[in-house]
Amino acid sequence: MIVVLAGGVGAARFLQGLVQVVPQERLTVIVNTGDDRDFYGLHVSPDLDIVMYTLAGVVDETHGWGIHNDTYNTMQQLTRYGNENWFMLGDCDLATHIHRTNLLRQGKTLSEVTEELCKRFSLEMRILPMSDQPVATHIQTPAGLLHFQEYMVKRRCADEVQDVVFVGANESRPAPGVLDAIKEAEAILIAPSNPIVSIGSILAVPGIHDMLHETSGMVIAVSPIVGGAPIKGPADKLMRGLGMEVSAVGVARCYRDFLDVMVIDEQDKHLLSEIENLGIPAVTTNTIMRDDAGRIALSHAVLEVAGLE
Amino acid sequence: MIVVLAGGVGAARFLQGLVQVVPQERLTVIVNTGDDRDFYGLHVSPDLDIVMYTLAGVVDETHGWGIHNDTYNTMQQLTRYGNENWFMLGDCDLATHIHRTNLLRQGKTLSEVTEELCKRFSLEMRILPMSDQPVATHIQTPAGLLHFQEYMVKRRCADEVQDVVFVGANESRPAPGVLDAIKEAEAILIAPSNPIVSIGSILAVPGIHDMLHETSGMVIAVSPIVGGAPIKGPADKLMRGLGMEVSAVGVARCYRDFLDVMVIDEQDKHLLSEIENLGIPAVTTNTIMRDDAGRIALSHAVLEVAGLE
Repeated sequence: MIVVLAGGVGAARFLQGLVQVVPQERLTVIVNTGDDRDFYGLHVSPDLDIVMYTLAGVVDETHGWGIHNDTYNTMQQLTRYGNENWFMLGDCDLATHIHRTNLLRQGKTLSEVTEELCKRFSLEMRILPMSDQPVATHIQTPAGLLHFQEYMVKRRCADEVQDVVFVGANESRPAPGVLDAIKEAEAILIAPSNPIVSIGSILAVPGIHDMLHETSGMVIAVSPIVGGAPIKGPADKLMRGLGMEVSAVGVARCYRDFLDVMVIDEQDKHLLSEIENLGIPAVTTNTIMRDDAGRIALSHAVLEVAGLE
Repeated sequence: MIVVLAGGVGAARFLQGLVQVVPQERLTVIVNTGDDRDFYGLHVSPDLDIVMYTLAGVVDETHGWGIHNDTYNTMQQLTRYGNENWFMLGDCDLATHIHRTNLLRQGKTLSEVTEELCKRFSLEMRILPMSDQPVATHIQTPAGLLHFQEYMVKRRCADEVQDVVFVGANESRPAPGVLDAIKEAEAILIAPSNPIVSIGSILAVPGIHDMLHETSGMVIAVSPIVGGAPIKGPADKLMRGLGMEVSAVGVARCYRDFLDVMVIDEQDKHLLSEIENLGIPAVTTNTIMRDDAGRIALSHAVLEVAGLE
């Protein structure tokens, strides 16, 4: 079994390659839910949906989120009713949030709802939320403590980052199957996701960090920072705000307690020795995934590192 | 002040005429909520929406319900997730149900939500749900006790009607303002709506029937049955199932406890004496409302009966 720790778009693109190289049944994906938020009373799980939609082949490839060719009629009408509209939710996409919210209100857990949605999308890998309890990533800024979506989407990452807080994390538990999957995996791959808010939130769920340390499976991370900048998203602002170096070295430091191998981009090969000085072996490959061939090549490279190819 | 007791399409068309004859601020519309039902965990109030959409000029005129030019993308996706799809909810329409449900979950009453929606639609009459408590109209059939929407929409009125039950009515109270509006009205107009499930449910809310009896305002009903058949909907099946005569006489008998004048269609003038034998004065006019001129003419005729023109 192979476990992947996943955020949103970067992880989904990595997984698009991985499923072409490894049978889906061998994969367990543990997904960040720190970005989850209610909109209009509906439970939205952005990263779960990005991963699901991408692997189901229905994602809007341009945005990396949402469903392709979606319309925005419901949201336009909600706006006429005085609701905020800074978080774009298409009509087909809203069906997911309506369905999920309905099942949650009926007493199902987020894990159960996710399993049910995956079945509907004919996905054969196991996709687990990091926790069935709410964990809400917040960014401490001079303007106050902002929910991550408010910081990123509404205010477009304009606020200075002073701290990152995972509200509810201490009271949360790993979703059923998460710890066992990490414990029993041959390899645990940390996708090229934001190390602070995508992977950091997963690590904030009590028990997961320790299990990554304890597992005999090889823990391999792919750096989402290439040439000193993130491929996508605000990882640079968050890392800088927390006083971290915005580089593959900075990412390696986030994972140093449990990381076995760091995979970095070829253009960062000058950082190899610095990472190895942390006691973490590092390898270089092309990590940018410009196209499907690039995604497949990255998966082959990572599996080779894991000794699985 | 004029009060109108209203169901869905028939009432909405009647009101379309009335608002062209009477200033909106003089109108209080008390709307049936016995047809309300949750779909996908969202609170749908069909008659409130039909009345609001119609008066706001956004209704789908062909159906008489829903919003014109609406799309059905959310529902199609919900169907892919295994949900039932027998109750058509368009994307714009769903915004109403999402918004309403969100406000209800935040603790607002259905009256408050309705007032807020009316403001958004720039409606100046007062639209009140009959009650803020749930009342669910059910039809007793050989196949069991069916929610009215299930009887009508899902099973297309195919089941034999044995009884009509307003679940929750005994525990319900008239929404704030309902009793006072009836008490203080110069006239209370019973729209040409289904006397069993649209008006009957309103009458089942404790206090409303008695206040119609007590008020000094003139109570005038327009028969929805013309020539022995309803203009729209299953009133005939329901009346017949309950052993009532499917005619303007049958309708007059439903309201005889408090009715001051019955307005019936010209083609039913042979029924005048039978209605008057019940002790109810009756007048004839053209009640069919084929077009806007017909709707306006009907309003004038009814207001004349009320002594308000």
